[in-house]
Amino acid sequence: MQPQLEDLKTRLHEINDLNGAAAVLNWDQSTYMPAGGAPARGRQMATLGRLAQEKFIDPAVGKLLDELEKAELNEDDAALVRITRLDYEQAVKIPPALLSAFTEHSAEAYQKWAAARPANDFAAVRESLEKTLDFSRQIADCFPGYDHIADPLIDFADYGMKAASVREVFSELRGELVPLVQQITAQEEADDSCLHLLYPEDKQLAFGWEIAKQYGYDTNRGRQDKTHHPFMTKFSLGDVRITTRVKENNLGEALFSTLHETGHALYEQGINMAYEGSPLANGTSAGVHESQSRLWENLVGRSRPFWEHYYPQLQATFPDQLGRVSLDTFHRAINKVQKSLIRTDADEVTYNLHVMIRFELELQMLEGTLAIKDLPDAWHAAYEADLGVRAPSDANGCLQDVHWYAGVIGGSFQGYTLGNILSGLFYEQALAAHPEITAEVGRGQFGTLHTWLKENIYTHGRKYTAPELIEKVTGGPLRIGPYVAYLKGKYGELYG
Amino acid sequence: MQPQLEDLKTRLHEINDLNGAAAVLNWDQSTYMPAGGAPARGRQMATLGRLAQEKFIDPAVGKLLDELEKAELNEDDAALVRITRLDYEQAVKIPPALLSAFTEHSAEAYQKWAAARPANDFAAVRESLEKTLDFSRQIADCFPGYDHIADPLIDFADYGMKAASVREVFSELRGELVPLVQQITAQEEADDSCLHLLYPEDKQLAFGWEIAKQYGYDTNRGRQDKTHHPFMTKFSLGDVRITTRVKENNLGEALFSTLHETGHALYEQGINMAYEGSPLANGTSAGVHESQSRLWENLVGRSRPFWEHYYPQLQATFPDQLGRVSLDTFHRAINKVQKSLIRTDADEVTYNLHVMIRFELELQMLEGTLAIKDLPDAWHAAYEADLGVRAPSDANGCLQDVHWYAGVIGGSFQGYTLGNILSGLFYEQALAAHPEITAEVGRGQFGTLHTWLKENIYTHGRKYTAPELIEKVTGGPLRIGPYVAYLKGKYGELYG
Repeated sequence: MQPQLEDLKTRLHEINDLNGAAAVLNWDQSTYMPAGGAPARGRQMATLGRLAQEKFIDPAVGKLLDELEKAELNEDDAALVRITRLDYEQAVKIPPALLSAFTEHSAEAYQKWAAARPANDFAAVRESLEKTLDFSRQIADCFPGYDHIADPLIDFADYGMKAASVREVFSELRGELVPLVQQITAQEEADDSCLHLLYPEDKQLAFGWEIAKQYGYDTNRGRQDKTHHPFMTKFSLGDVRITTRVKENNLGEALFSTLHETGHALYEQGINMAYEGSPLANGTSAGVHESQSRLWENLVGRSRPFWEHYYPQLQATFPDQLGRVSLDTFHRAINKVQKSLIRTDADEVTYNLHVMIRFELELQMLEGTLAIKDLPDAWHAAYEADLGVRAPSDANGCLQDVHWYAGVIGGSFQGYTLGNILSGLFYEQALAAHPEITAEVGRGQFGTLHTWLKENIYTHGRKYTAPELIEKVTGGPLRIGPYVAYLKGKYGELYG
Repeated sequence: MQPQLEDLKTRLHEINDLNGAAAVLNWDQSTYMPAGGAPARGRQMATLGRLAQEKFIDPAVGKLLDELEKAELNEDDAALVRITRLDYEQAVKIPPALLSAFTEHSAEAYQKWAAARPANDFAAVRESLEKTLDFSRQIADCFPGYDHIADPLIDFADYGMKAASVREVFSELRGELVPLVQQITAQEEADDSCLHLLYPEDKQLAFGWEIAKQYGYDTNRGRQDKTHHPFMTKFSLGDVRITTRVKENNLGEALFSTLHETGHALYEQGINMAYEGSPLANGTSAGVHESQSRLWENLVGRSRPFWEHYYPQLQATFPDQLGRVSLDTFHRAINKVQKSLIRTDADEVTYNLHVMIRFELELQMLEGTLAIKDLPDAWHAAYEADLGVRAPSDANGCLQDVHWYAGVIGGSFQGYTLGNILSGLFYEQALAAHPEITAEVGRGQFGTLHTWLKENIYTHGRKYTAPELIEKVTGGPLRIGPYVAYLKGKYGELYG
């Protein structure tokens, strides 16, 4: 089977090269490209994407997989065949005509949304959103045999997670979070005015970058640039870049976005180099990826021990702004909890409520129990029930996020909260194996934690699906206990 | 014929997208890529190059050309078919086995040279260079019917230029330059110590960039970054970038490399936007391209009127360094002529002698009148005859340039001097049409010159080959008169 294996690997490598090249073009577009480059850049990326897709859905790939699935392979090669099969089925089962009709529709839907949102005009997108829902169902129906119609859509980002079990887990989490948010917000609001003084850009960037390096980000295999929206991108395992955004009147913006993207980057940089160029050389799911960004941003980067070490350095960097602000005040400021309307501005505790509202509405739309015309009211009702707030408009309601207006309805939100839950679950495992981690974080040392994460999570890339990885690392299925305990412990201390 | 034309254009556009993407990857590699990205980047660029090549040599392209050559087409479409045919024949006539054997050999030859040059060990590359010569002849022989065996190799960079006529023109130029250099260097050497004080990087960059913009470089369709070697690169007609290199103890380095690359960029930015994505959207030859970099760098950027305008600004930028240096001294410093050993360090007058020595040696090697084993001595003899200097070693002799050790022998040097000759020829035409240009340059105004060059040269892209363009712009063939007159006029004034 060696020739077939080599053939498959060569094909996958070529596809990987095309995708890596497209990622470079995308990074350049977000960082340094002059405005005049935009029209051609769009075409160049589309060409690379189309060629990669054409090469992947080649029936010869399917035939190689058929043959290799019967063969005796070593563990990594067997995983490669298994994962490639998953991707292949996802790619070939959607008829090209359906895919291109949907792509065309999506572009239009996005344009309509971009105009409707500032105009607060849900009626202007209603019909197009109904078509999106219809397309979403059609796409899901390309994968018959599902338990829930959302399952195939969830599989695109979080393979193996099922709507029913995620719903159950989320319901359990909601039961914990709603009263927790109420308890916290019944108290006096934290004062975060110290974060909103003038903080010069260069010093902000240098401070965040220094922590990224201390976390273990390999600067020989990455770099940081500025973009409108922060992101992590990978051109190869040897080149994993992050970007950040600086606001001179908001100290948290660049700092925590840097720690967040560093978490994503540590995951990618930690993947077994033997997987380079293959589909295994990626994070295994949206949720597991997000678990690492949130772990390094929140569980480590907003923790008390962390700031016991770094706050004196931050004060020394910004003596005029923070010289007289106590560690207590600062730590409360960066962990301020408040009921808000906008997901992307939400704090660590309320964030999941925003996400779970969207996830539940998606499921209901797909099930047909919620009509598009009733979405605005359902949105407002859910916010009132879970967060006790009501948006004054749909612009800050169901027109808020781009997701449903630029892709399918279903599968694009659950990863955020799965990531939070997993950050608590994985961190508990790391602490159980190495109780000294907390003290090390308090000394600005991250080697033990980073090594544990590399060995238990990062190195595997996509060798295991998310459910398999969770089972392997924690000995059981997804559970919210450790994450809830983390939140209650931390915010119990902060808010008594 | 419309469907065939559309089919051809679509194919060429896709190839153009792949080449544009490869150029972005190459730019990133030279500017921002972390070291760890190198191995994958090499593979990604190789994949893009291979796919572009595969798509271009597809027999379907040849068939479309066959059909379209019989059709009635408008002028631009006819030019597209004509130019694509030239490229196609160059691509398909070399057997893939020969090409891949040569590519493999070149990589080895380069490695040997990289080790042999610092060791001053010509013997270590002799055998590999003999193979290169053999490959060069085999590649030339893929294009039977030539007058001189170098002609097909010259065609790759300067299509339509013939070894015999270039040799004649160069011989004429040598006859003018050798005595000119002797006359100049018999006099006291210019004092260029004012260029070698400490000039802070940021101010150097800002000064050069400001002139680039005043030349007419469209910053909405380009940008400048720093690289080890300066270059111009194009991702599309909407994104034409330049790079520069700064030496804090050499004021000329960044400034003149910026003006040089700006000249290349003005050419590309000036191409008819209707050619975007097609092979017509490129400069027409190495020589014509170099004519524009040299025109803006030397004929404009080292001229007396130019510095009558800009020198006060330069003095204001660097008052400590230049406040007491006269315009005369500065102008002589940036136009210092000296006999030297290294081509890339040579001044405007001697540079051509370096180039023509290489061109003549190439021809003799290809003709078989110069054996590889005799190359080092032939090199030294030529330098003594033309420049009156002798390198103490082959490292600064025939091991100096990478060209013969990383590609074919033949066709890669003539463009530099053709460019200088053409810069004089084209500038004379511009001045004849608009005698006010000299005075405008003296006021820092470049619009008339830039517009004339756009309308007469840039806009055409590759619609005309270099010989056709020269005929069209000047009404006759290539001639050295205007360039020699320029040199004699300028250096006559400088050196009496």
